[in-house]
Amino acid sequence: MVQSLPRSPLAPATFPDLPVINGVRFASVAAGVKYQGRTDVMLAQMEPGTTVAGVFTKSATRSAPVRDCQAKLGTNGQDGAAILVNSGNSNAFTGHFGQTSVSEITAAVAQATDLPATRVFTASTGVIGEPLPHDRIVAKIAELETGLADSRIKDAADAIMTTDTFAKGASAQVKIDGQMVNIAGIAKGSGMIAPDMATMLVYIFTDAKLAEAPLQTLLASICDRTFNCITVDSDTSTSDSLMLCATGASGVDVTGSDEFAAALETVMLDLCHQVVRDGEGATKFVEIQITAAASDADAKVHGLSIANSPLVKTAIAGEDPNWGRVVMAIGKSGAAADRDLLSISFGDVLVAEKGWVSPNYREEDGAAVMKRDEITIKVDFGLGNGCATVWTCDLTHGYIQINADYRS
Amino acid sequence: MVQSLPRSPLAPATFPDLPVINGVRFASVAAGVKYQGRTDVMLAQMEPGTTVAGVFTKSATRSAPVRDCQAKLGTNGQDGAAILVNSGNSNAFTGHFGQTSVSEITAAVAQATDLPATRVFTASTGVIGEPLPHDRIVAKIAELETGLADSRIKDAADAIMTTDTFAKGASAQVKIDGQMVNIAGIAKGSGMIAPDMATMLVYIFTDAKLAEAPLQTLLASICDRTFNCITVDSDTSTSDSLMLCATGASGVDVTGSDEFAAALETVMLDLCHQVVRDGEGATKFVEIQITAAASDADAKVHGLSIANSPLVKTAIAGEDPNWGRVVMAIGKSGAAADRDLLSISFGDVLVAEKGWVSPNYREEDGAAVMKRDEITIKVDFGLGNGCATVWTCDLTHGYIQINADYRS
Repeated sequence: MVQSLPRSPLAPATFPDLPVINGVRFASVAAGVKYQGRTDVMLAQMEPGTTVAGVFTKSATRSAPVRDCQAKLGTNGQDGAAILVNSGNSNAFTGHFGQTSVSEITAAVAQATDLPATRVFTASTGVIGEPLPHDRIVAKIAELETGLADSRIKDAADAIMTTDTFAKGASAQVKIDGQMVNIAGIAKGSGMIAPDMATMLVYIFTDAKLAEAPLQTLLASICDRTFNCITVDSDTSTSDSLMLCATGASGVDVTGSDEFAAALETVMLDLCHQVVRDGEGATKFVEIQITAAASDADAKVHGLSIANSPLVKTAIAGEDPNWGRVVMAIGKSGAAADRDLLSISFGDVLVAEKGWVSPNYREEDGAAVMKRDEITIKVDFGLGNGCATVWTCDLTHGYIQINADYRS
Repeated sequence: MVQSLPRSPLAPATFPDLPVINGVRFASVAAGVKYQGRTDVMLAQMEPGTTVAGVFTKSATRSAPVRDCQAKLGTNGQDGAAILVNSGNSNAFTGHFGQTSVSEITAAVAQATDLPATRVFTASTGVIGEPLPHDRIVAKIAELETGLADSRIKDAADAIMTTDTFAKGASAQVKIDGQMVNIAGIAKGSGMIAPDMATMLVYIFTDAKLAEAPLQTLLASICDRTFNCITVDSDTSTSDSLMLCATGASGVDVTGSDEFAAALETVMLDLCHQVVRDGEGATKFVEIQITAAASDADAKVHGLSIANSPLVKTAIAGEDPNWGRVVMAIGKSGAAADRDLLSISFGDVLVAEKGWVSPNYREEDGAAVMKRDEITIKVDFGLGNGCATVWTCDLTHGYIQINADYRS
């Protein structure tokens, strides 16, 4: 059952206008996998010459579709490619039925699109532990194929939502060697459907030309600074998938292009922030900036320790400038810290320094920062050059309500 | 401000009758460190010949009293010893004032008790980042000294409470070589005082005779199976302290005694369970039993990953037999797991096996288990001989209320 949740107070006003990406077309249908009265399957089909990269959950109990995608990537196929995603059922922890469902769907898509099955990728999000009624999806593939259009990316974004309170899209356009390259992406995340866990699915398309190996390297590298730097509740889905497809239709080779990398990072940052903004029960968007840690790795460990601390997150929900809890989260992280070298700021208000509250700090200044919808917590470690930025949301009664009060 | 919280529904009916431990006397006073109208300082004083062991938070931002205790332990002193604990102020993140306060208090206790300051240990729990008004404590030391009595351990347990909803005590008596040995302990924990984090303090006393090195080894070993296997919210205090004092007054040497070790473990297990039962907002006491993991270390990692998962904890709060979230928590832990070898039971109800829901599982059977106050989740990994048991509580609106709704 999908809960009828109010739109997140942190949501953007509208879904953005996304540019057409030549070489990829989208469609969606209502297959009735679980939900009624809405679309629940999307298909993206890419022209020959498309390269595909992907980053997936590291979960040891990851789903059959994730394992199938991982097995298929890196083949450097020069064929086209297709991605089919359903919502309503995650096809996770479904025993040997899991791979059967994936095989049935990918075979049917391969036949309809005249692609090899090795170039058909899938993802599923929704209820866990129930066999995926793949027949309902297979029965709709002809209709999906007929409906494909390069303008329908928003329909795709709608179809993959579970209890997301808004559809998520982002884009960038960048001129390289005088020619325009387009990037557009969609995501779902942090919505919840009992008895499933929040799942993040992200699909990004570009008309740039780039071989699969550097595409994969670029995606993984930017993922480390974007999607791997967000957290809602520290729990990791068995279905998390992020895929990037480069159709090459612009004819612009972006090998080694810093401009392209920067534009892609903009899109990924925008999408990952939207996932946090739709975090379950979120009322505050929080950026945690770590500087002068012993290393970048240490900085990320500290940032995520602060971002995942229930006591920090509840303090933010309560608009309490509770820097003591930030000190606690730093202390427990396991990364290097010297209590007496820490400086902690909320927004531009210096709260603590030199192992104690700052002499000029006034509680009302910190409290004023915490009343905002968007809060920055800065911690300088005074140790080295390591830095990281992570993003999270607060922990509220809304989170408990979504995850405890409603039953499957 | 101490919140007036209702007694935990998981609390024992009454404080237990604890045996007198010869060689140690207790006292408490109301020093007005922060609270009014209640005691807030306890003193325990041990006779010469007492050995002392301790285990402390690993936090990099741990408090001045913790650092002081760590520096003093392991000296194998044959003098007596004293422990002074205050509530209301944690003396954490108080810059150089932190050690000054510790030095003032330990010097005053040393003078009053005729002990060297190196044998005076302290702990503080309460508000963080405010200088400890140690003068108020020093002014009461004569009164504490006068009030010392071997029967006053319950008074000590009361004085160290912050927002604990009940005082915690446990004991064991064991016959070794025909002679009775007594163990009695007190604890505080999982109570909360804004803007501080939950802190766990534990003091255990025995009239057994044991040298400091084996006492320390025994304490650390049992701590790994008891206090290091509980979690309320995954946050670690900067003040956590666990100390064990052996007065030797019974004359019974327990070196190498399995009976003594077992009795001590009983006391530590009882106390650590009481801390979980007083977890903030807790309505369910949860035991997680991991068997057949690749190693004991892996088993503990899996157990704590399940116990710390907000999605598992909210499902328990919602009485939802949500085994999918248990699978998720296993998958994300980083320790070895084979999805298709897992068996998951709620109570005695086999829920999932062989990578899927068990064929005989009925949702109403799982739901019936989840309605209980005390729930056991069992996971068999089918990999090796590793096992571990961890304990936690559910994540409820009460937790949010205590930590977000009330401001400092």
